[in-house]
Amino acid sequence: MSGEPHVAQSGEDRLIARYFRPLARHAGAFALMDDAAVIAPPAGCDVVLKADGIIAGVHFFPDDPPDLVGKKALRVNLSDLAAKAARPLGFLLTLALPDEIGDAWLAPFARGLGEDAELFDCPLFGGDTDRTPGPVTISVAMFGAVPHGRMLRRAGAQAGDRVVVTGTIGDASLGLALRRNASLAGKWGLEAEQGNTLQARYLVPQPRTNVAEIFGHYASAGMDISDGLTGDLAKLCRASGVGAEVHATRVPLSQAAGSVLARDPTLIEAVLTGGDDYEILATVPAGKVEPLRTEAAGNGVAVTEIGTVRAGHSVRVLDQHGNALAFARPSFSHF
Amino acid sequence: MSGEPHVAQSGEDRLIARYFRPLARHAGAFALMDDAAVIAPPAGCDVVLKADGIIAGVHFFPDDPPDLVGKKALRVNLSDLAAKAARPLGFLLTLALPDEIGDAWLAPFARGLGEDAELFDCPLFGGDTDRTPGPVTISVAMFGAVPHGRMLRRAGAQAGDRVVVTGTIGDASLGLALRRNASLAGKWGLEAEQGNTLQARYLVPQPRTNVAEIFGHYASAGMDISDGLTGDLAKLCRASGVGAEVHATRVPLSQAAGSVLARDPTLIEAVLTGGDDYEILATVPAGKVEPLRTEAAGNGVAVTEIGTVRAGHSVRVLDQHGNALAFARPSFSHF
Repeated sequence: MSGEPHVAQSGEDRLIARYFRPLARHAGAFALMDDAAVIAPPAGCDVVLKADGIIAGVHFFPDDPPDLVGKKALRVNLSDLAAKAARPLGFLLTLALPDEIGDAWLAPFARGLGEDAELFDCPLFGGDTDRTPGPVTISVAMFGAVPHGRMLRRAGAQAGDRVVVTGTIGDASLGLALRRNASLAGKWGLEAEQGNTLQARYLVPQPRTNVAEIFGHYASAGMDISDGLTGDLAKLCRASGVGAEVHATRVPLSQAAGSVLARDPTLIEAVLTGGDDYEILATVPAGKVEPLRTEAAGNGVAVTEIGTVRAGHSVRVLDQHGNALAFARPSFSHF
Repeated sequence: MSGEPHVAQSGEDRLIARYFRPLARHAGAFALMDDAAVIAPPAGCDVVLKADGIIAGVHFFPDDPPDLVGKKALRVNLSDLAAKAARPLGFLLTLALPDEIGDAWLAPFARGLGEDAELFDCPLFGGDTDRTPGPVTISVAMFGAVPHGRMLRRAGAQAGDRVVVTGTIGDASLGLALRRNASLAGKWGLEAEQGNTLQARYLVPQPRTNVAEIFGHYASAGMDISDGLTGDLAKLCRASGVGAEVHATRVPLSQAAGSVLARDPTLIEAVLTGGDDYEILATVPAGKVEPLRTEAAGNGVAVTEIGTVRAGHSVRVLDQHGNALAFARPSFSHF
């Protein structure tokens, strides 16, 4: 750059200018030309805080399309915010990149990230980019706004409340299995289109941002499903000091997942415990399920009642005969 | 845990409960038992946002004491906040840990992190812990508070303002060189104590949190020095649309660094461009330098005037004869 005799523009500056400045549209991000950003939270609102990272070879495949990796990094956090009834305000990004990552990966990564920053009205506020001897590591810290005191908590479910979920469950888990072993498509009798649908659900979660406010209005407790429906329901119940009974047959399935389960009913465990659903799991007072469902449907999001909150501590998934299912591994954990 | 027949406590839950819950003292962190945290920013304040990561083998040595690694991860962000005139509110932590990292590392890491969270009144609000095939990667997103519209920016320096720095410059750079090559201690004629002082400055930065408000009151622009004094001054000047002249002989040195430079004057380049200082660099209207210096001294922080902001774009470091020094690598960049 001209006029700066003592400091040439560094590689890091170039990278920020080319790929990340266009995502920093909020005035408080100072076009990423300062060391920190500033935001005045909306009046009457609390700031909701969430951080989640994704790592190549752990949360995504190193050869996943970079634009979709960018979307995923943002969406796993957007999903949390939605389930907390918060709307996104923006995010910070810390990137650790191995030497072999250059423009060919960064350009589509930033493009995907930028498309979603725009789509979800969630601009970039700053961050940090470093080289690493390890895999691509993407950490997003996201902040959102919720009316004061109204963040939807895990705690809050009451005996008698109904258990509901958005969308369909298990697609991502089956999609991941397909991604790891393409021959399963034949075994499961899937059309190419069905297999693609399942894999897309693993690749790119669909955060339920557009119904966050509706859940904030009607739900008594909520969280997003990232580690599997049964395990996450148990976490919500533990925090609320209640139990629950859900019916496996009521759990909403996509056409593709339904067809897989018809072929191999034992895969119900993968569906209910596999994780990466990024749907909202919530409890709702019985009388509020209908208005919640109607308003969510008006925003294009299906809400399905799958069970009931019970007094006690037992969280049970019942089969079509009313018998409790037992799972080897009820929830995903990295440790 | 008792009363939870379907979900055993996962390894991740255990890790959070044992090491990180004690750091989450703010009510809005919900003792890390929810998916997100919530904070009501202080009335009349903006929220300042900053994220910075450190990686084993890049920003610290894999065999650095884990408690000091924890402190460093927090302090590099605290330093930014201080230079922006903001006081810390809290932080989010995303950890990526290789398989070999267990309690022996995590216990002291969390202890160091917790000591500083307490010392700087900066509680943990949440985060994420994953396994990685790569090195230990620690990403901190920090948020602070500053009176509305008063974040100290890089932009704002005016011709005639004085350039000031806190503390001493160059210790960390020399400390890192010593850490890499212990034989330099002999070459530089350092006592063991002096060598330890320099290395400690690299290991554990000293964020200037306790003078942040004073700089907010008096300074026209500010940033912390992380990539080297000359490069960071050039960044500040570029953002402000000004130039500057600083005098190498006025740059404050520790007794140890002064003794090294007396032995090998060419090391002035390492001192002025080496980075990791984590001191505040600011510009201050001429008439305000004295009150700033006095108030900062009252908080135990030395402030030294090292030069003057000039019209134009030229940023020059002058030697004792008034000649401009030229450096091969004026600033640190990862790319």
